[in-house]
Amino acid sequence: MADVVRFTKNSSATLKARKGFSLKDSDPDSTPGYDGDKNAGEELLADLDDNLAQLQEQLFAGSRFGSTRRILLILQAMDTAGKGGIVTHVMGSMNPQGVQLKSFKAPTPEEKSYDFLWRIEKEAPAAGMVGVFDRSHYEDVLIHRVHSWASPEELERRYTAINDFEARQTAAGTTIVKVMLNISRDEQKERLLARLDDPAKLWKYSSNDLKERAFWTDYMDAYQAAFDKTSSKAAPWHVVPANKKWYARVAVQQLLLEALEGLKLQWPVPDLDVGMERELVERS
Amino acid sequence: MADVVRFTKNSSATLKARKGFSLKDSDPDSTPGYDGDKNAGEELLADLDDNLAQLQEQLFAGSRFGSTRRILLILQAMDTAGKGGIVTHVMGSMNPQGVQLKSFKAPTPEEKSYDFLWRIEKEAPAAGMVGVFDRSHYEDVLIHRVHSWASPEELERRYTAINDFEARQTAAGTTIVKVMLNISRDEQKERLLARLDDPAKLWKYSSNDLKERAFWTDYMDAYQAAFDKTSSKAAPWHVVPANKKWYARVAVQQLLLEALEGLKLQWPVPDLDVGMERELVERS
Repeated sequence: MADVVRFTKNSSATLKARKGFSLKDSDPDSTPGYDGDKNAGEELLADLDDNLAQLQEQLFAGSRFGSTRRILLILQAMDTAGKGGIVTHVMGSMNPQGVQLKSFKAPTPEEKSYDFLWRIEKEAPAAGMVGVFDRSHYEDVLIHRVHSWASPEELERRYTAINDFEARQTAAGTTIVKVMLNISRDEQKERLLARLDDPAKLWKYSSNDLKERAFWTDYMDAYQAAFDKTSSKAAPWHVVPANKKWYARVAVQQLLLEALEGLKLQWPVPDLDVGMERELVERS
Repeated sequence: MADVVRFTKNSSATLKARKGFSLKDSDPDSTPGYDGDKNAGEELLADLDDNLAQLQEQLFAGSRFGSTRRILLILQAMDTAGKGGIVTHVMGSMNPQGVQLKSFKAPTPEEKSYDFLWRIEKEAPAAGMVGVFDRSHYEDVLIHRVHSWASPEELERRYTAINDFEARQTAAGTTIVKVMLNISRDEQKERLLARLDDPAKLWKYSSNDLKERAFWTDYMDAYQAAFDKTSSKAAPWHVVPANKKWYARVAVQQLLLEALEGLKLQWPVPDLDVGMERELVERS
C-alpha cells in the first residue's frame, strides 16, 4: 500500500482568517494544504482516528490530576454545509465520555430573557473535555445582523463581549478552534435538492432553509464582519472550504490534532507506589 | 469472505434475568447466544454499526415529527468490567447528536440534599435520543446496601421508587435496556494488574477500587437483590457475561438493535409538496 498522503504541517496557519482575509476570495472547491484526492483523504482521516482518540484521552486523563486544559471547537456554517458530518466523522473516533457536544437552536423565551452569552457560558467545556458547539454565540452576530434583529450599536457590543468571553476562556485553559465551513451557493442548492430526493434525508429538509438562503449575500457579509471583528490571536477563525465534504473533515481533524498536539500532553503519573499496589492486588 | 456469524435472534430473551435467575450460576466466561469466536464477534460488531447508526437516526428523526420514543441504556458493573469500552465501541457508531451520555459519579453535596432520583430525572433522555447511564440510580441500592448507608426499610423504599420511576419513563415512551456487565473476581484482578503495568492505563487505577473489591460477595448479593426487586416486565435486567470484552460489546449492541427494531421505526415524511419545493429550490 502506498504511503498515506499527509496534510501540510501547519493547518491552522493555512486556514486562518488573517487580517485582510476576504471570504469572497476563498474558493469553496479548493483543498488548501492537501494534495491528495478523495480516497487519499478518507484514508488519512481513518489513519489519524487513533491519534485523535489517544490525544483526547490524554487530555481527559490530565483533568483527573488537576489540569484545566480543554478544547472548544466552534462550528458555524450555512445550512447543509456539513456540520453534522464533522461531528459524526471527526468527533466519532473520540471517547464519547470526553466529548461535550452542544447544538444551539433558536433561543427559548427563557434564554432570550438573559444576555446572549448566558446560555453559552453554561455549555463551556469542563476541564479535560473536547467541547463542540454546533452553532454558537456567533448566531447573535450572524442571523441577528442579517435580519437587523440587533442594531449596529448592539452588534458592536456583542463583538466586544465575544472577544472578552473568548479571551477569558482561553486564559482559563481552553484552546478555542473556530471553524466556518464554507460552501458555495450552488453547492447548497445541490444539497437541498438531494434532501428532497432521498427519503432518508427528506426529514432534514425545512422550507425555512430556503428563506435563509435568500439572504446569502447578507450572510456572507455578516461572516466577513465576524472574521474582521473576532478573529483574535488567541482565538482565530479558520475558513474551511467545504464543497468537498471529505476535505472539510480532513481539515477539521487536522485543526483538532494540531490544537491537541500543541498542549504537549503526557499520560499522568499518579502518586502511588506501583510495586506495592501490585502486591496488594495480587493478594486481594 | 465467509458469512458473518450472527447472534441468536432473541438477545433480550437470552440474557434476561428472569424470576429465579441466580447471578452465582451465570458464567462470566460464557458467550450465550453466540457461537462465533473473537474475530467473528469483532466482525459482526463492525458489520452492524451502520444498522445501529441508521436506526438511531430514524429514532432522532421521528422526534422532530412528534414521536416521544427514546431509548435508555443503563450500564452497571464492578470496576474494570468495561462500561467505558461499551460506550466507545457500541455507542461510538451513532451520531453523537443523538446520544445523551451521563456518567454518574459520587453525588455532590447538593445532589445529596435531594431524594436520590432528583439527579436521575434531570438526565432522563429527551425524545428521539439514545440515553446512556454509566452507573445510575442503582448505585443507591448497590454501594448503599453494601456499606449499609441505607437501612433495609430505606432500601425497600428505593426499590419501589425505582420501579415506579422506570414504569413512568416506559409509559412516556422510553424503552429501558438494563445491563449488568458480569466479570469474575479473578478477571478483575487481571485487569487491575494490567492498569498498573500500562502507562496509558495507570491514571485509571485507584486504590479505592481495591477497597470496593474487598466487598465482592456483598456486591454480588446486592446485584442479586436488585435483579429480584427491579427486573420488571417493562424494564428487565440483562446480565451480560463480560470476561470476554468482545462478547460483551456484541451482546449490548444486539440488545440495542433489538430495542430499536422493536419500535418499527420509519423515516418520517414531512407534510410538504416535494415537487413544489424542488421547483422553489431550483429557482432560488
